[in-house]
Amino acid sequence: MNQYNDASISEINLVMDAAKVAAPIMRKLSLSKRAELMNAIADGLEQSGDELLAVVMGETNLPDARVRGERGRTIFQLRSYAKACAKGDWLEASIDTAIPDKVPPKPDIRKMLVPLGPVVVFGSSNFPFAYSTAGGDTASALAAGCPVIVKAHPAHPQTSQLVADIIHKAVESVGLPKGVFSHVHGSSFEVGKALVMHPHTKAVGFTGSYSGGKALYDMANQRKEPIPVFSEMGSVNPVFLLTEKLAADPVSIAANYAGSITLGVGQFCTNPGLIIGIKSDALDQFISSLATQIGNIPPGKMLHPGIAKAYVEKRSEALAQQGVTLITSSSTEASADQGIPTIATTTGAVFLKNNQLHQEVFGPYSLVVQCANAAEMLAVAHQIEGQLTATIMATDNDINSHIDIFDAIVEKCGRMILNGVPTGVEVCLSMHHGGPFPSTTDSRFTSVGADAIKRFARPMSFQNFADHFLPLELQNSNPLGINRTINDELSKQAVS
Amino acid sequence: MNQYNDASISEINLVMDAAKVAAPIMRKLSLSKRAELMNAIADGLEQSGDELLAVVMGETNLPDARVRGERGRTIFQLRSYAKACAKGDWLEASIDTAIPDKVPPKPDIRKMLVPLGPVVVFGSSNFPFAYSTAGGDTASALAAGCPVIVKAHPAHPQTSQLVADIIHKAVESVGLPKGVFSHVHGSSFEVGKALVMHPHTKAVGFTGSYSGGKALYDMANQRKEPIPVFSEMGSVNPVFLLTEKLAADPVSIAANYAGSITLGVGQFCTNPGLIIGIKSDALDQFISSLATQIGNIPPGKMLHPGIAKAYVEKRSEALAQQGVTLITSSSTEASADQGIPTIATTTGAVFLKNNQLHQEVFGPYSLVVQCANAAEMLAVAHQIEGQLTATIMATDNDINSHIDIFDAIVEKCGRMILNGVPTGVEVCLSMHHGGPFPSTTDSRFTSVGADAIKRFARPMSFQNFADHFLPLELQNSNPLGINRTINDELSKQAVS
Repeated sequence: MNQYNDASISEINLVMDAAKVAAPIMRKLSLSKRAELMNAIADGLEQSGDELLAVVMGETNLPDARVRGERGRTIFQLRSYAKACAKGDWLEASIDTAIPDKVPPKPDIRKMLVPLGPVVVFGSSNFPFAYSTAGGDTASALAAGCPVIVKAHPAHPQTSQLVADIIHKAVESVGLPKGVFSHVHGSSFEVGKALVMHPHTKAVGFTGSYSGGKALYDMANQRKEPIPVFSEMGSVNPVFLLTEKLAADPVSIAANYAGSITLGVGQFCTNPGLIIGIKSDALDQFISSLATQIGNIPPGKMLHPGIAKAYVEKRSEALAQQGVTLITSSSTEASADQGIPTIATTTGAVFLKNNQLHQEVFGPYSLVVQCANAAEMLAVAHQIEGQLTATIMATDNDINSHIDIFDAIVEKCGRMILNGVPTGVEVCLSMHHGGPFPSTTDSRFTSVGADAIKRFARPMSFQNFADHFLPLELQNSNPLGINRTINDELSKQAVS
Repeated sequence: MNQYNDASISEINLVMDAAKVAAPIMRKLSLSKRAELMNAIADGLEQSGDELLAVVMGETNLPDARVRGERGRTIFQLRSYAKACAKGDWLEASIDTAIPDKVPPKPDIRKMLVPLGPVVVFGSSNFPFAYSTAGGDTASALAAGCPVIVKAHPAHPQTSQLVADIIHKAVESVGLPKGVFSHVHGSSFEVGKALVMHPHTKAVGFTGSYSGGKALYDMANQRKEPIPVFSEMGSVNPVFLLTEKLAADPVSIAANYAGSITLGVGQFCTNPGLIIGIKSDALDQFISSLATQIGNIPPGKMLHPGIAKAYVEKRSEALAQQGVTLITSSSTEASADQGIPTIATTTGAVFLKNNQLHQEVFGPYSLVVQCANAAEMLAVAHQIEGQLTATIMATDNDINSHIDIFDAIVEKCGRMILNGVPTGVEVCLSMHHGGPFPSTTDSRFTSVGADAIKRFARPMSFQNFADHFLPLELQNSNPLGINRTINDELSKQAVS
């Protein structure tokens, strides 16, 4: 299906050499020039018209509105990270002025983030725009001042190529060398491995499956010089239904969740795949209402045949586990490339004993765990693995009487939602899209929101430097007007 | 020599269980209460008197002034990180308020750093106070809100025990549970391994050798749940002598470096172990002056017999390399436990071909590399591995005519010093004590200065939370008066 040849080792060496040459140029590029490049890419995407959308729809089975919306999100990301890049808060600039008469004398020391160097990006299959070629990882690496090498996702190679062409043009239009951005194809494991193991590669961004993300992470750690790998590997995004909240309106909650579970044929990393309640009439009502609604939602085409096949398999495996009961699946018949909306249930006791049930079934599937009591719900909260998100549906009374459950959830997730749904990942500074392992390989960084830039930078101190040899960001007069911490106090002031 | 027994596996399990119980208590502890604990430890150290100093001197061979000064530094670290902890800038608190009429509606999202959980600290042999039991790692982990488990360094177990006793008392005095801080002894590899591999451990801090730090890092990556390991493993801290600067005053520069190379018997991680110049009369004068001064510096007792033995071996190995010439060693005879101040030299060509010469010789040893020309110096700058520090001795003309060398150095180090010496690591926010691999296992974090706190925390978002369920740091009224980014603008204001 892939009309592009896998990159050869010599092609990979060429792009990596070009990236190495571009690295110091990118590092010294002003923040505003980096922003200019990112805005030029956004302009290119904006002008790309409906032809590109048709290619994306053909390669991903995503509907027009979704593809159009995702392109808009990608443009917004590029522009908002460009703005954040130029604003410079992310640099964590800090200045300690000299105290010559201290014993021993304190030298002038100034610190800011500097780029790591060439970054390899593996795009995702489920976001052909927003987390692929010109997506969040590319935008944040460019903002950090790093050259980028994208490996096209083999499920949408033409989309990736067309977007790469837009980026190449943007790089040229702002007068930067080609090595700032490279794009290679590769459906084999070897291409990805060669990119991650290349000595010029200094960091890796990945969005996809646990097996893929963990394999890259392990490889990178076995390099002579280990490098950071940011793998966003998904999660089951547990939802805890507390009793008073659920009893107040089980039908509305079920309606919201029927929508969230099946949004985009369940192919979001924040899809709620696990719902935990306590046995009660309200939980019965919730399940029965959810069942009715899920039954009425028709199956949808999944991203590609591989994902549809995996869904069939994982779903069957999950349903075949002892103590798991199918509650409902869509009443509309499905073709092989479609994902069938499905709700299953089990008891807290079964769930606690069977780790297989904790695993993600990527698609429109959710498991309702019926706990015997609050103590069992707490045990579930303690036992689940690290998650991108966790949601608690609760009144004030619920939280106050079950603060232990609330506390257990905090330890497990990167984002906690109170009375909402986990799907919908807002692009803003306060968004943390990340979480404890195995949802990601590094819980300390986000892949959504402008703080994603920090993944590809490291602090560096400049000691006893003449003002004119310092980066502009750290010079006395604060020529860029950025926030800096001067002798422990944040300000935009010049150093006097 | 070690009068303490290695901790057994069941003892390790007990302290790890206690740390797990203490973790949510520490997480919810107010910033000011964390600071109170840290200040109580500082108070205890301040009151510890000369008896403790006598034990430290006995175990480390460090002289009175150094041990006294290092205790002062440790107290300063605890107090200054406590202040930074309470100030809250490190939390990176961020608030995006809801925009209900956006399509789709934007929810209220707030983010701040939350603690990782129990942190295991391996103290260093060369800083029995400042980077050991109550040192920088412990201080920053406590500030981050993490329980700490210290493994005593087997070279100064009694020092470690006495300091641990001070911490235990401080924990009790502020009314916190014992699990907040634990201390175990262990001279075997097994104790360290059991601590790093324990499922309750969420991060590791280490200061020491490459082999030790890398082994812990590799172990942690092979866990079912990999965890971050911050190993500060030292470096050779290259010094680049540019021609105009050197020619102006080779004798003073030699005097400064004779002092820096032999400070603390060369047992600092920022010891300048590599000096790179370009063949010239000035370089000859520098070498001859350095030789005279080093010859006059008597050998000093090293920290412990193992380090003295390693120095003898590494020094011999280095001197036995083809093309390496001994320039001078101290003219005073040395006993087996002393480190002999030593200067060797080689050519740029030999250095570039022999990687063995790039390795650290921990002690009062430095290798002067005589390059044929600036191009060879540039090649050396490109070839060296990642470093904690790099120093450039240069006039403005030197830098302007050799900007390529300047640029190459930036890529290699965590701190760059212009016309100074690398020894002396100021404790302040702008200090970055870290650097590209192999100087550390994670170039993105510092082990000195209040930003060291960030090593032991991760961002977390709270979405759609009622104000009273948010951490105080994120509540509307800003009850703690900390800096927060509200809708992309930094301020101390309340949310209106």
